[in-house]
Amino acid sequence: MPLSQTFDTSKNIAIGEQMYAYITEMFPICRSITGNGVRQTLAILKKIIPLEVQEVKSGTKVFDWEIPKEWNIRAGHIKNSKGVTIVDFEDSNLHILNYSIPVDKKVSLQELKSHLFFLEDHPDWIPYRTSYYKEDWGFCISYNQFLELEDDVYHVFIDSTLQNGSLTYGEYCIPGETSDEVLISAHVCHPSLANDNLSGLSVAAFLARHISESKTQRYTYRFLFIPGTIGAIAWLALNEQNTGRIKHGMVLSLLGDSGNFTYKKSRRDTAEIDQVVSHVIKSKSEDNSVIDFIPYGYDERQFCSPGFNLPVGCLSRTTYGQYPQYHTSADDLDFVKAKNLETSLETVIEIIDALEANRRFVNLNPKCEPQLGKRGLYSLKGGNNDAKDFQLALLWVLNLSDGQHTVLEICRRSKLKFALIREASEQLRSADLLEEVVEAGNQRMFS
Amino acid sequence: MPLSQTFDTSKNIAIGEQMYAYITEMFPICRSITGNGVRQTLAILKKIIPLEVQEVKSGTKVFDWEIPKEWNIRAGHIKNSKGVTIVDFEDSNLHILNYSIPVDKKVSLQELKSHLFFLEDHPDWIPYRTSYYKEDWGFCISYNQFLELEDDVYHVFIDSTLQNGSLTYGEYCIPGETSDEVLISAHVCHPSLANDNLSGLSVAAFLARHISESKTQRYTYRFLFIPGTIGAIAWLALNEQNTGRIKHGMVLSLLGDSGNFTYKKSRRDTAEIDQVVSHVIKSKSEDNSVIDFIPYGYDERQFCSPGFNLPVGCLSRTTYGQYPQYHTSADDLDFVKAKNLETSLETVIEIIDALEANRRFVNLNPKCEPQLGKRGLYSLKGGNNDAKDFQLALLWVLNLSDGQHTVLEICRRSKLKFALIREASEQLRSADLLEEVVEAGNQRMFS
Amino acid sequence: MPLSQTFDTSKNIAIGEQMYAYITEMFPICRSITGNGVRQTLAILKKIIPLEVQEVKSGTKVFDWEIPKEWNIRAGHIKNSKGVTIVDFEDSNLHILNYSIPVDKKVSLQELKSHLFFLEDHPDWIPYRTSYYKEDWGFCISYNQFLELEDDVYHVFIDSTLQNGSLTYGEYCIPGETSDEVLISAHVCHPSLANDNLSGLSVAAFLARHISESKTQRYTYRFLFIPGTIGAIAWLALNEQNTGRIKHGMVLSLLGDSGNFTYKKSRRDTAEIDQVVSHVIKSKSEDNSVIDFIPYGYDERQFCSPGFNLPVGCLSRTTYGQYPQYHTSADDLDFVKAKNLETSLETVIEIIDALEANRRFVNLNPKCEPQLGKRGLYSLKGGNNDAKDFQLALLWVLNLSDGQHTVLEICRRSKLKFALIREASEQLRSADLLEEVVEAGNQRMFS
Repeated sequence: MPLSQTFDTSKNIAIGEQMYAYITEMFPICRSITGNGVRQTLAILKKIIPLEVQEVKSGTKVFDWEIPKEWNIRAGHIKNSKGVTIVDFEDSNLHILNYSIPVDKKVSLQELKSHLFFLEDHPDWIPYRTSYYKEDWGFCISYNQFLELEDDVYHVFIDSTLQNGSLTYGEYCIPGETSDEVLISAHVCHPSLANDNLSGLSVAAFLARHISESKTQRYTYRFLFIPGTIGAIAWLALNEQNTGRIKHGMVLSLLGDSGNFTYKKSRRDTAEIDQVVSHVIKSKSEDNSVIDFIPYGYDERQFCSPGFNLPVGCLSRTTYGQYPQYHTSADDLDFVKAKNLETSLETVIEIIDALEANRRFVNLNPKCEPQLGKRGLYSLKGGNNDAKDFQLALLWVLNLSDGQHTVLEICRRSKLKFALIREASEQLRSADLLEEVVEAGNQRMFS
Repeated sequence: MPLSQTFDTSKNIAIGEQMYAYITEMFPICRSITGNGVRQTLAILKKIIPLEVQEVKSGTKVFDWEIPKEWNIRAGHIKNSKGVTIVDFEDSNLHILNYSIPVDKKVSLQELKSHLFFLEDHPDWIPYRTSYYKEDWGFCISYNQFLELEDDVYHVFIDSTLQNGSLTYGEYCIPGETSDEVLISAHVCHPSLANDNLSGLSVAAFLARHISESKTQRYTYRFLFIPGTIGAIAWLALNEQNTGRIKHGMVLSLLGDSGNFTYKKSRRDTAEIDQVVSHVIKSKSEDNSVIDFIPYGYDERQFCSPGFNLPVGCLSRTTYGQYPQYHTSADDLDFVKAKNLETSLETVIEIIDALEANRRFVNLNPKCEPQLGKRGLYSLKGGNNDAKDFQLALLWVLNLSDGQHTVLEICRRSKLKFALIREASEQLRSADLLEEVVEAGNQRMFS
Repeated sequence: MPLSQTFDTSKNIAIGEQMYAYITEMFPICRSITGNGVRQTLAILKKIIPLEVQEVKSGTKVFDWEIPKEWNIRAGHIKNSKGVTIVDFEDSNLHILNYSIPVDKKVSLQELKSHLFFLEDHPDWIPYRTSYYKEDWGFCISYNQFLELEDDVYHVFIDSTLQNGSLTYGEYCIPGETSDEVLISAHVCHPSLANDNLSGLSVAAFLARHISESKTQRYTYRFLFIPGTIGAIAWLALNEQNTGRIKHGMVLSLLGDSGNFTYKKSRRDTAEIDQVVSHVIKSKSEDNSVIDFIPYGYDERQFCSPGFNLPVGCLSRTTYGQYPQYHTSADDLDFVKAKNLETSLETVIEIIDALEANRRFVNLNPKCEPQLGKRGLYSLKGGNNDAKDFQLALLWVLNLSDGQHTVLEICRRSKLKFALIREASEQLRSADLLEEVVEAGNQRMFS
């Protein structure tokens, strides 16, 4: 269905523009894996959906890791000996090495250089660098800035704190007809980078709003807005006993650029989510691509670790490291477009629709074909092609509804469109010729 | 073996000509899914093989269906207001919508038109149409006839009956060494169409005669000459408890035209019959094709419904709907050729021979190779290539006879010819080096 | 590691030259499936490794076979009526049909011809022929010699004995950490043929010496130097109860020519040895080839008979019958090269190294990624590509170490190099993040 039907467009603002506006609001905040930046970002997302904010104390053991001290930053700059500010946190929060310890001292050019990061290939851009688990300080500057540095004594100043506090994340759950869950996760830890990660946050939040405003779904949907790596690890550690409910999942990231879609399959390689996303994006365009799982990337790394091995893939447009602006100041508000955000949201909604519709049926009249004519399902002398295709779809669904084949599998084997097979299934179910197969242990929460 | 060795050619009539003569005899009869046309046709087939005629009463419940009233027709025509007959059942039984209810009245051109069927693309041909389950009357005419109709009052007359009676089919069973069955089915319900279905009837009947005149086969062969859809459903309903005996099967249809062979695989996709037919027809010509199962076509639709899922495929030359003459008056005695019928029969016999020979053996001397030389199976200094191939065939059969591989599977893996692997198996069995594997429950009826 | 590090090169003789020197020493001996030729050959191999010589008495039943009488030959010639020797065993032991019974008589040219073997296509070469199981006498000569034969009375003389004795073979076992065995087998029954079989004997013996001089291996290695067919059958019959220990194996043959490597897979087709050898030789050159098992060739025929079905393949360069010199006097000391022998040995050692390293691990921290940084395994701001690849290798090993994937399987799925995955596994094991999976029943002999 068109998005306009499901969103409040009373203000006549297109969905993509709304998404873009939220990204614009979140962009200036200096986020990290802990700290007030995350809290401010979640507060903005709360305007879209009623997510719950969770705090996990510094020092908490989460599997092999420990929640680090909380980092907050107020200011930072480099001044030359004449007192002229040549690098300033105010200009870009990327200038400060993320998780820098406080510093306030005079240093020689030589010492300063050992704390600087820049990109020779892109002399105007500031790189994004972090040092979460090794206490250090540093500045990220453009190569042009670097070239202008003269032999001088510099005053380096970072007004940050690294002390006991907590790691913050957001969670939002929309109950469905069953307790089987679909997990949607986006990272919330990058500072002023627009595509990575604000695009994922906005698509996830708008998807959540869409689902919450739709009629009840078969699945329960759980949305996580978490700091990368340590956030996912913390969530898994705190929710370990419930991960068995997760039947499908996607990590959303890098969804605002103009590239084609890329779906990275889960470690399982042939999970239902892998089949459904592959089908949907390939049906939209053969230029969209499906790639194999690799244990590098976003939080699918943790969800797909062998001790969990959850069916969670990752949907992006251009993938990490494949566009030059990745992890630099050029991943800015110009790099993402409202139009791209909107088509990303549409695609994700299509995926969820297909997942919801991808049921498995049992033919209640499995011996020979049922007589479709007497049920008005068979146009006796029918002529046009659509009617023929629909009759064929009815026969395929009846033939393959042995409890083993999903709608998507019938669609693939019949080479008919998903929507046609889905409609045929629904009509046959209405005619009491099919019954849905519900997995053992997949309890209906509402009859 | 050449067909001439297995058929009575005392009258010096080639097999293909004999088959064609029977088709010529059956062609004028007006068949339908019930009625005297089927009985007359079975009476002609009885001259070839001693089939048994079965009658199933109208109203009998068969799964989701009910045996319909019996339809018989004696005459039918359209006359114009001057009393001139412009369409006559005598000219072609296709002119009457099959299963038309009786009618005898004057109608306007407008009303008449709503009961007419024609083909604009082929203005000389009469289409074949039916209305089995919706009571209606109608005429099928050429488009040229349609164009000549003037604004007039027409007398439409159909002298048919639709009343309680029975559905008729023929069955013929040739017992084999085991109770495992091969099912061969052909439809007997089409009126004056030569390829569809008289070619299938004649190939099935001549195959039955060939098997009955050969030495005892491993399998029991069951031949069905049944009305399409409702006949197959009736037979399955009445014989449900015995369908477990069916180990292989083929629906035969469209075997008199000049096209290449097409085998549509069973729903199981990799059943032994699928492998054997594919191998045989592909060995004959790469232009023959093997296509995937679809739940549309002939009675494989019923045999392969999920509640039965029998290993039954469909052998044709050009498949339904793929030649323009299909279901028209152009599917006539000129369209089928004696030569095509004969090569179809030869191919089907080759398939049955391969199926019979496609045994599975256990090597009785499985540890190391047996000493072939002391048994005269190994030419010590043998030279020519055929002897080399035969030695290789012996080694392959010994190596793969672990009870898991059929003759065909050994043939595929070794890339040697089926006949060679078969001969090697027979020689090794004669030398007491192999023993056939008989499936549990596959009882020998004769020791 | 370079061979120079593992062999005694005190005499400054390259390994290939050493191997070639042994082949030169073994070349003139007239070997057969029994007799003193085998004993003399094993005595030479004993200078390389302390193999044990076994004797199996004539008449011993070994499965379907019986150990034949022992054959020994001292002399043989053909003289013309003038007493001129025209064919002499002294010139080439190939001149005498191997296993010829003694003969000493005058024969016509016609009778002589029925006992002669020659090759029209290669008029200078003497063919190699045998008659082990049919008592016969004969001479193998060049076609040029054949053409010179005049109508004359010839004196044929063969001073051989065929009497009760024994079949001789050599065996050498190097115990490893586990009782799981790797079987390496080479045939020792061919007379003056250099590539077939002396190349295989020398590669096997030098491999054995290499392993015995290395640190303890995971596997126990068993080397067989056995007469083809009957020797393998005898060994299997006498050691039947221990064949369950054989986890991997290779037959070595034809390893001295200049051709690319060819590996013939075991009957199992996907055994670990098949995967490992394929990977190693394909990594060396895409021109090396891997072919499917066929039940013809060397003693893999026996090891892969269905009653054993051992995971034993065959490594060669140019395979039997694929080079014209095969089984002729042209398979001589010029045909094999020291360089080829050395690279064959290197390749076999690489295969064994990969097999030893192809362990299967369990991630001891399977829930989420372990924190590599705190263990010094993750370079925090690492830059160069090698470090990136190594980090990726660490992540792949952790992700796939679920007890199901070997090092080679991780290497394939990650598309990273075997050595990199192996090193990553070792580092992770050192950091107590991995534990090796040892198959049940695969007992460690030493803790």
